[in-house]
Amino acid sequence: MVAQRELPVEERKQLTSADQLFTYTLDSLPLQHGGQLGPVTLAYETWGSLNAQGDNAILITHALTGNSHAHDVQYPDDPKRAWWNLLIGPGRPFDTSRYFVVCSNVLGGCYGSTGPSSIDPTTKEPYSLRFPVVTIRDMVSAQRVLLEHLGVRQLAMVAGGSIGGQQALEWGVTYPELVQKVIVVAATAALTAQAIAFSEVGRQAIMVDPLWQGGNYAPGHGPAAGLSIARMLAMVTYQSEEAMEMRFARQQARNKALPTPSRTADLAERFEVESYLYYQGESLAKRFDANSYLYISKAMDLYDVSEGYSSLEAALRRLRSKALFIGIRSDFLFPAARVRWLAEQVRTLGGNSTYVELDSPHGHDAFLKEWGQMTDALNM
Amino acid sequence: MVAQRELPVEERKQLTSADQLFTYTLDSLPLQHGGQLGPVTLAYETWGSLNAQGDNAILITHALTGNSHAHDVQYPDDPKRAWWNLLIGPGRPFDTSRYFVVCSNVLGGCYGSTGPSSIDPTTKEPYSLRFPVVTIRDMVSAQRVLLEHLGVRQLAMVAGGSIGGQQALEWGVTYPELVQKVIVVAATAALTAQAIAFSEVGRQAIMVDPLWQGGNYAPGHGPAAGLSIARMLAMVTYQSEEAMEMRFARQQARNKALPTPSRTADLAERFEVESYLYYQGESLAKRFDANSYLYISKAMDLYDVSEGYSSLEAALRRLRSKALFIGIRSDFLFPAARVRWLAEQVRTLGGNSTYVELDSPHGHDAFLKEWGQMTDALNM
Repeated sequence: MVAQRELPVEERKQLTSADQLFTYTLDSLPLQHGGQLGPVTLAYETWGSLNAQGDNAILITHALTGNSHAHDVQYPDDPKRAWWNLLIGPGRPFDTSRYFVVCSNVLGGCYGSTGPSSIDPTTKEPYSLRFPVVTIRDMVSAQRVLLEHLGVRQLAMVAGGSIGGQQALEWGVTYPELVQKVIVVAATAALTAQAIAFSEVGRQAIMVDPLWQGGNYAPGHGPAAGLSIARMLAMVTYQSEEAMEMRFARQQARNKALPTPSRTADLAERFEVESYLYYQGESLAKRFDANSYLYISKAMDLYDVSEGYSSLEAALRRLRSKALFIGIRSDFLFPAARVRWLAEQVRTLGGNSTYVELDSPHGHDAFLKEWGQMTDALNM
Repeated sequence: MVAQRELPVEERKQLTSADQLFTYTLDSLPLQHGGQLGPVTLAYETWGSLNAQGDNAILITHALTGNSHAHDVQYPDDPKRAWWNLLIGPGRPFDTSRYFVVCSNVLGGCYGSTGPSSIDPTTKEPYSLRFPVVTIRDMVSAQRVLLEHLGVRQLAMVAGGSIGGQQALEWGVTYPELVQKVIVVAATAALTAQAIAFSEVGRQAIMVDPLWQGGNYAPGHGPAAGLSIARMLAMVTYQSEEAMEMRFARQQARNKALPTPSRTADLAERFEVESYLYYQGESLAKRFDANSYLYISKAMDLYDVSEGYSSLEAALRRLRSKALFIGIRSDFLFPAARVRWLAEQVRTLGGNSTYVELDSPHGHDAFLKEWGQMTDALNM
């Protein structure tokens, strides 16, 4: 990797917080399923400083609907301001006084990185469904070029949860020589049939919305109802029966005026859990691109760390960095037993692997909620 | 109850099998949430003969998308011909050589009983969303009038799974003096927040389909895509991670030509589990009315056996029949632990209650698959 730390001023855009969103554009990226995509822009944020050796970098990789804003320097103690806010900063597991922390929006995303809503230079129109299928491996190879551009020679750590965890695992397997430690949170070697099924139900809900229009909706006029429904379902899979029972049980809705995704009146009394899901659906529909949702969720489904290798063992044997796997007791999308099994496989194959389980009722989302347990696990 | 066994010939309609579908029409049914509905027709089938005392009847209650065809006399050994086929017949748990077995399509359904697709006599058009909210208790009170019409004075058993199980429980609590034994399979006192959430995602998918048209679609031109998506999701919740992994894992689809509900092309490779769900979705959309799906699924969500009583204990204390509760180890829609808890509550309150758990990987649907274990449990 070559050192190119200095970024042109025009690449810098002020965020609402004190953090800056940078972009870097690659002319072209070869894709796992064939062909090239270019130009490819990655939007990213950084915290802390890279040392002269270029070996104190940490890459943070985000989940399906996440973005580069993993930390907020202006409000570093508010978990709502940035998705791993409390884990990043001086003295925290991703210690910005010692490390150069980077988080980029994934390829295929809609927070500044090239995705289906980006303008295709050949047609001057959004790619929509002409955007190629991108994979977790493609996301990671784009990140690698970005890090090279930033002067990073070695990653001290790469860490993420959910599809961020898939990316972390993929980093360790694809670029074993570049990573000292991978931290795979609530992710497995490949999704279960059940998780793929939930994922496809969400995608079909998006595509049945007449506003989707074969993917060719105008910006801001996308299938908000379909995307809301997909999000409602996803939110159920990110939680757990236990957590939803503690929080909602069979409470009647406090807010009966909140519109439903389909804008239909309630058939009968409304439960609080329904109101909550309408709110979550609408929130995502306002901030996220439906086509990005289709592509990134498909990348999640397609991910199989063994792809291109003779076996899963052959893939995992490549992992030579330290590996920390964090499972969540109540996660049913990426079950803890499967995360533990993966950690054990790596150890059996001679890898340096540790497994920690979060004892949380919060399901898959626990990696975005259990700050104390996450901090303890990351400090192991 | 009065004896009125003889049915007018015009009420009889030949089924494709040797079984006959009968109908009985009530002038009016008072509803739990107020008001009256009338006329109310119930479609039903019977097997075996009612004795002179009118006390050897068994009522079988069906699940969400089920119907009265629980048994098929022409093909009594084919589980695909009728939903509880192998449990009904001479020498079987619901022994037609000793008992008079009745199964009726639920109020709100679309297999001959009055539901939202029926003609509203005041407007001469289908009720659609002008159909009133009906509850499990309403379904049961309609069944009670039907049984009275048939001359049944005592039910030897009432048995059902899923919302059929809710109906069985409701029978025991509402009409304790009329039932000798209730058999509640894969059902609980009330749905969890998670189950309500899945249910509402399905309903929203139906209502976002432009063909739904506020419920006013023409017969045969309903929201097939939306109903397919709702069914896809429901099918996931009726199975289990374990069962889906055994059956599908990450196999590629054999049939890549099967259309998706939204009639869109595949974004990338198709998994077998996706093909399977498309097929299941389309099958239901061809045979079931979308508005019936909305109303019956809502009845399932609304069901709480304690409604109208001072407490759950007060409701369960009314249960004086023998009660058999059957849970399923891998059921996550009606978790076994909650079925067991309900059985224990009944026993604690002085009831005669037994709990049996099916050791099956097939999730909620095990009550429609595990014939050996079901037979053993029912014969206890």
